[in-house]
Amino acid sequence: MARLLMIPGPTPVDPEVLLAMARPVISHTSPDFDEIHGETVSMLQKLFRTSGKVFLLPGSGSLGMEFAVRSVAGRGSRALVLKAGYFGGYFERILRSLGASVTVVESPVGRGFTGADVEEALDRAGDVDVVFVQHVETSTSVANPVREIAGVVKKNGARLVVDGIASVGGMDLRLDEWGVDVALTGSQKALSTPPGLAIVAFSSEYSVELEKREPSGIYFDFLSLSREMESTRNYHITPAVNLVFALNASLKRILGEGLENRFERHRVLARAFTRAMEALGLRLVAEEPFRAWTVTAVYLPQGIDWSRFYSVMRKRGVEVAGGLGGLKGKIFRVGHMGEVDANDLIATIAAIERSLVELGYREARLGQGLEAAQKELSSLGL
Amino acid sequence: MARLLMIPGPTPVDPEVLLAMARPVISHTSPDFDEIHGETVSMLQKLFRTSGKVFLLPGSGSLGMEFAVRSVAGRGSRALVLKAGYFGGYFERILRSLGASVTVVESPVGRGFTGADVEEALDRAGDVDVVFVQHVETSTSVANPVREIAGVVKKNGARLVVDGIASVGGMDLRLDEWGVDVALTGSQKALSTPPGLAIVAFSSEYSVELEKREPSGIYFDFLSLSREMESTRNYHITPAVNLVFALNASLKRILGEGLENRFERHRVLARAFTRAMEALGLRLVAEEPFRAWTVTAVYLPQGIDWSRFYSVMRKRGVEVAGGLGGLKGKIFRVGHMGEVDANDLIATIAAIERSLVELGYREARLGQGLEAAQKELSSLGL
Repeated sequence: MARLLMIPGPTPVDPEVLLAMARPVISHTSPDFDEIHGETVSMLQKLFRTSGKVFLLPGSGSLGMEFAVRSVAGRGSRALVLKAGYFGGYFERILRSLGASVTVVESPVGRGFTGADVEEALDRAGDVDVVFVQHVETSTSVANPVREIAGVVKKNGARLVVDGIASVGGMDLRLDEWGVDVALTGSQKALSTPPGLAIVAFSSEYSVELEKREPSGIYFDFLSLSREMESTRNYHITPAVNLVFALNASLKRILGEGLENRFERHRVLARAFTRAMEALGLRLVAEEPFRAWTVTAVYLPQGIDWSRFYSVMRKRGVEVAGGLGGLKGKIFRVGHMGEVDANDLIATIAAIERSLVELGYREARLGQGLEAAQKELSSLGL
Repeated sequence: MARLLMIPGPTPVDPEVLLAMARPVISHTSPDFDEIHGETVSMLQKLFRTSGKVFLLPGSGSLGMEFAVRSVAGRGSRALVLKAGYFGGYFERILRSLGASVTVVESPVGRGFTGADVEEALDRAGDVDVVFVQHVETSTSVANPVREIAGVVKKNGARLVVDGIASVGGMDLRLDEWGVDVALTGSQKALSTPPGLAIVAFSSEYSVELEKREPSGIYFDFLSLSREMESTRNYHITPAVNLVFALNASLKRILGEGLENRFERHRVLARAFTRAMEALGLRLVAEEPFRAWTVTAVYLPQGIDWSRFYSVMRKRGVEVAGGLGGLKGKIFRVGHMGEVDANDLIATIAAIERSLVELGYREARLGQGLEAAQKELSSLGL
């Protein structure tokens, strides 16, 4: 039995994409690679809605976060971190280790930040150069209203960096139009590509601005990358050739589906899953209107042990994720992004029902969650 | 026609390794991945001959260089860079951008550094904390005698960082025994794995020492990685799961061949190629005893244009590399490492002969280089 990978990343990868990745390696400085790399970057510009620079770095999503932070902040920068969970802490950690002056505003568990919250945080913090926020905070499945936040940040004359690791490809994020200066993601989430590529996008305006910066190190250096990546033939970092093949194949599937269709599919799956959990009497971590479309975090019922739940789910061929930080052992998380479809979701809900029953959860009957999901999927035409 | 990838990396990857990489993605925090990751790290410890830490980071070789530099040097550190070509300049660039105080000693083109050279350089530079050197300087195909250099550096009480990007897996490099503190490589060279993994190894002694350091950033932070990588289940960086599958498969092939056999194969191929080039009247860039076993740089004959040579070689299905920095347009470079075997080498020499003749090089007859290579391969029992 192939295991259903229902965690908030890595996500399942289509066999077509896996096979693209298994193509023989080619030279990273050949005209052949230059073409495929250029095409991939241009598809990414469409996805991030920017005519600025998009870098495709060998690295994980957290490398993308660090590259973004180092591009916009350093020793003495005044940063405001909007922290809605565990991954907000990454921004804080990177910023502090670089000697930035950091104000952290934490939202209650399950809630994100409205524009008004950000307005107030900026007022209290005083002068702020850059604001950092997760589009989707993967640890709580909270989604922040980036467009609204960007409006407030711009009005206050600050820069905005958005971690789109668990959103890009599954929820809309527009750099140039919304006024997001930097956004980043990883290959292994809603882009349905194996892990190993960090993708960092700059708005067209900020790309121009950054040409004036001093370098710090070389791997994170906007200028070196910007100049050398005009053509991969001058590239000082060997690109992850085969992962680029995979991402290229996956982006063609994504743009083929159509971005609007894709976002809507994510919204529908999230809603069906949410309804199913509620029907089973389970409590969701994220509250409305802060629910992500790509991942859902659910409190485990009283008396159900996380590691036993994880085991019985795996026995049923479904891999789900646990809680992080303060939520460790208290919740489980299901990713429903990228290639995940209604069939995978139904199988997952069914496995959750049977697993909970096996572990002695008596508040629901088998089929109750499935019924709620079916109604939702059906009413939405799926 | 499949193109023969005879550049100094990426190198050809065995189909078995490509297919291992095309396996369905699994969770990076699952027990299944923990096992394969642990096994891979332990094979790498055998390769680097260390019982210290070995990190497997999503990233290119240059990320490995920067991680190594940041582990051992920072603002105010006194560094000595032994620069035998273009890639020595990377160390210099990273160090300067981090505010280290850098002394650079450059060797004449085609030569590396003996122990006596290093002794003298250390005397002149005064107090030095860390010495940086390429094992193989890929731009000139110069190999430095790391064991000898390490002896001198240790005697002077400094640390030694070795860039083994183009050597590890093709030439012997021993951390604990020789006294190399940090060494690094990339997946795509003599390890015959697609690009995208930076591998950074620490000697057992220095691993203990580094536990006392302050972090700087998170992606390059020894402490976070060290603690969290004990098990991938706590890992704060999503590993490049499928590239780890590939590297695991490739390392099994490498250890199956036997390290001594593998190094010897590289030595023989290098020698056969060298003899062939000399028989054709071509001049080699690297002088004895500084010739690498993994890559050979050759001066283009007078009047032969690099870009035309590149094109006619590609027409013949063989991809070779050009010069970098000051050697741009003047040389070509052939990688003969990893999976490259005698058949690939013979085909490459033949293509070089026919291409040179096509471009009007009149000093050699067809078959002359092949004959010399044949004699060498044959006398060495291949």
